[in-house]
Amino acid sequence: MEIITTLALKERLAELQGTEVCLQGWIRNHRKQKNMGFIDFYDGMCFKNPQVVYDNTIEGWEKVSTLHVGASITVVGTVVPSYKDPTTPEIQARTITLEGDCPEDYPLQPKRHSVEFLREIAYLRPRTRLFQAVFRIRSVAAMAIHTYFQDRGYVYVHTPLITSNDAEGAGNTFTVTTAKMGEKYDASEDFFGKPTSLAVTGQLEGETFAMAFSKIYTFGPTFRAENSNTKTHAAEFWMIEPEIAFCDLQQLMDVEEEFLKFVVKTVIEKCPDELEFLDKFTGGGLLDKLNGLTGSKCARVTHDEAITILRKAMENGTKFQFEPKYGEDTAKEHEKYLTEEYFHSPVFVYDWPKDIKAFYMYQNDDGKTVSAVDLLVPGAGELMGGSQRETRMDKLTERMDQLGISKESLDWYINLRKFGGCTHSGFGMGFERLLIYLTGVDNIRDVIPYARTPMNCEF
Amino acid sequence: MEIITTLALKERLAELQGTEVCLQGWIRNHRKQKNMGFIDFYDGMCFKNPQVVYDNTIEGWEKVSTLHVGASITVVGTVVPSYKDPTTPEIQARTITLEGDCPEDYPLQPKRHSVEFLREIAYLRPRTRLFQAVFRIRSVAAMAIHTYFQDRGYVYVHTPLITSNDAEGAGNTFTVTTAKMGEKYDASEDFFGKPTSLAVTGQLEGETFAMAFSKIYTFGPTFRAENSNTKTHAAEFWMIEPEIAFCDLQQLMDVEEEFLKFVVKTVIEKCPDELEFLDKFTGGGLLDKLNGLTGSKCARVTHDEAITILRKAMENGTKFQFEPKYGEDTAKEHEKYLTEEYFHSPVFVYDWPKDIKAFYMYQNDDGKTVSAVDLLVPGAGELMGGSQRETRMDKLTERMDQLGISKESLDWYINLRKFGGCTHSGFGMGFERLLIYLTGVDNIRDVIPYARTPMNCEF
Repeated sequence: MEIITTLALKERLAELQGTEVCLQGWIRNHRKQKNMGFIDFYDGMCFKNPQVVYDNTIEGWEKVSTLHVGASITVVGTVVPSYKDPTTPEIQARTITLEGDCPEDYPLQPKRHSVEFLREIAYLRPRTRLFQAVFRIRSVAAMAIHTYFQDRGYVYVHTPLITSNDAEGAGNTFTVTTAKMGEKYDASEDFFGKPTSLAVTGQLEGETFAMAFSKIYTFGPTFRAENSNTKTHAAEFWMIEPEIAFCDLQQLMDVEEEFLKFVVKTVIEKCPDELEFLDKFTGGGLLDKLNGLTGSKCARVTHDEAITILRKAMENGTKFQFEPKYGEDTAKEHEKYLTEEYFHSPVFVYDWPKDIKAFYMYQNDDGKTVSAVDLLVPGAGELMGGSQRETRMDKLTERMDQLGISKESLDWYINLRKFGGCTHSGFGMGFERLLIYLTGVDNIRDVIPYARTPMNCEF
Repeated sequence: MEIITTLALKERLAELQGTEVCLQGWIRNHRKQKNMGFIDFYDGMCFKNPQVVYDNTIEGWEKVSTLHVGASITVVGTVVPSYKDPTTPEIQARTITLEGDCPEDYPLQPKRHSVEFLREIAYLRPRTRLFQAVFRIRSVAAMAIHTYFQDRGYVYVHTPLITSNDAEGAGNTFTVTTAKMGEKYDASEDFFGKPTSLAVTGQLEGETFAMAFSKIYTFGPTFRAENSNTKTHAAEFWMIEPEIAFCDLQQLMDVEEEFLKFVVKTVIEKCPDELEFLDKFTGGGLLDKLNGLTGSKCARVTHDEAITILRKAMENGTKFQFEPKYGEDTAKEHEKYLTEEYFHSPVFVYDWPKDIKAFYMYQNDDGKTVSAVDLLVPGAGELMGGSQRETRMDKLTERMDQLGISKESLDWYINLRKFGGCTHSGFGMGFERLLIYLTGVDNIRDVIPYARTPMNCEF
């Protein structure tokens, strides 16, 4: 007899109805009556799980009726329509065989556990419905991202993780070394012959590939040694950084918008059951938000315009903890107001004050702003940050000098402007931030399989 | 007028024939005649490039005819059939506009450069035909891998890169720290409160997800601080590690074979021009090898059988530097003989001597071997290594004790056997090894955008 997964069972339900199948998976819940038993069965391949029903004529009734929650089993039985839900099959079991037992002190019992408790048993939590939903969506969203870019001819580039240049000019990097800790250190004798750290971005290397393939994207891990214990910070996270030649800031926003809508739409199509569950779990509004996005047009305002809107709101009685100011960064509360109160949609804020943005951004003619753009979304704040890149070599090196960024170690980056440079733009999106937006789960620790945060590196 | 890429030009050639289009890209070569000019134009979106032809009636003839190799340009012109090759269009240019100049000392001149020289200018080499082929195939192969697994319901898992457990029990890991190098070191005050390193595998964490989703795969970077300067070693490389519940060793081989054929077939279909170029570049035989694989059946022999074959070959006059011995590891020359001389196909060698394999592999009844399998392929040696996992807790912990592997730090891994364990198997494939096989390029430094090797961490 054919061994099938619950995914195959769902896809071939009409054909399999009334036939005998074999399934292998685990017991999520087990309710026993006098002469019958009901097993909530799952194998993780499909979010909606079949119920396995057996009665006291089953071989080894005694043993079967005492099977523990968490045990792995092989079920042979007939596919019958479910009374409760015609789209979810029921299995009338002929035999149920224990594959691997699970003691009664199994930490995952069929009740609601707190996410804090589940973080402590992170190696078991993917078995819960919440994390089956979250990590399936993580996987489907990752594939949607690849599909978007690959279908449009972009080249996927693996930029290096170990690096000797600190692209953002900031500190907050992890040192990578093979030297003995606590002993005298000579960088020239370290593995790479110089100090190295974990990359905070792949953008600069990505630009070198965009100058060869026109359209490229990265999708890989990124590291920040930031000592902040917040809901949105992790030391290790995944990032997507597309870079596009012959593309200016307005065209970049077109790409960002199309890309985001594609990913959201794909997840809505492929994970309806997961999203329905998460919608309930997170208190409602998730599906409305996501469906709303795919139909809406993202607003576009300059930073100056955004500040004007915020200041008007303040004059009209909106309370902000921080005063919105021209030429200065915006706060989370401002982003929230713009997306959730004013525009009721995602908002591109562009032309940011030069002084709060990175050295590689195109300097606008006003001498005050750069061609940078942040995409703010309802519920998750800044989701993407991008810019048109500075292509004028004199402007770029002048800015590097002003900010004290070494030109020697980035000579190759500067040279891109010398050897056939062109207008080009790119953006970065933190994958976990997207997942927070997609799942409604609000803590980054719950959208990463094994989160790394200050003082925490378990499993 | 519509700005299109060379990819769109190729895909819509019939429709665009005779119409005027606008293209943006770079000059690979520029040949001038008295009243005409020919530009080898590329934008990296398509391997076969159109030729741009202009004559002395073009606006700014003087300037156009002196455009440098490497410069970026915008071309407006009519699509006409090429005399040389009907599948490659020609553009009869009306205007050619310089976007970014390129000086005459541009390191990439239209001649053959050595791969060693190109490694030194790794940020420019993606512009060459060789690396346009290699890195497009890298991208297409990555997507084929995702497609294979996602289409079959596998969950893509991002296992952690920073880890506090050293899974292989071996050294050769990079330390990750925020402590000041060369100063007194207290691990409890380091970023994570304990010593951490870069992961050499995601398998163990992958197994925790397989026990929840049945079928999962990882695809991410992996690190080895091995001080070896060979053609096949890099300190940072990408690895694919699928893990499958309710799957034994023979079923695992079925998956490996189907997976490999799928990826090779996809690359053959999507990159015919790139492969044709690489076939010539690497001296022929590449296409035959790849086409041969998709049609052949991989051989399967036990390690004992493989040694018997090798010893017979030796007796019949085949010279080996190392004598093939029962119970011992095989050498590269042995793998070469098996795949290229004896089977003329990829070969699965399984049931390996326990003492040369990892602690987590299923111990066979003979007491001497484990259910491990290596896939050897012609031209690239060991491409995948997998095993059925030890699911009996006593056998597993006994082996860990024998090898001195800490049970405390891996208690969660051991517990997978306690909480609903089941027969499961998985394999690992180094992505760069696959690329060496797919491209015929023999040095790992030439299939990684920016390779990290001992004493080398440039760009």
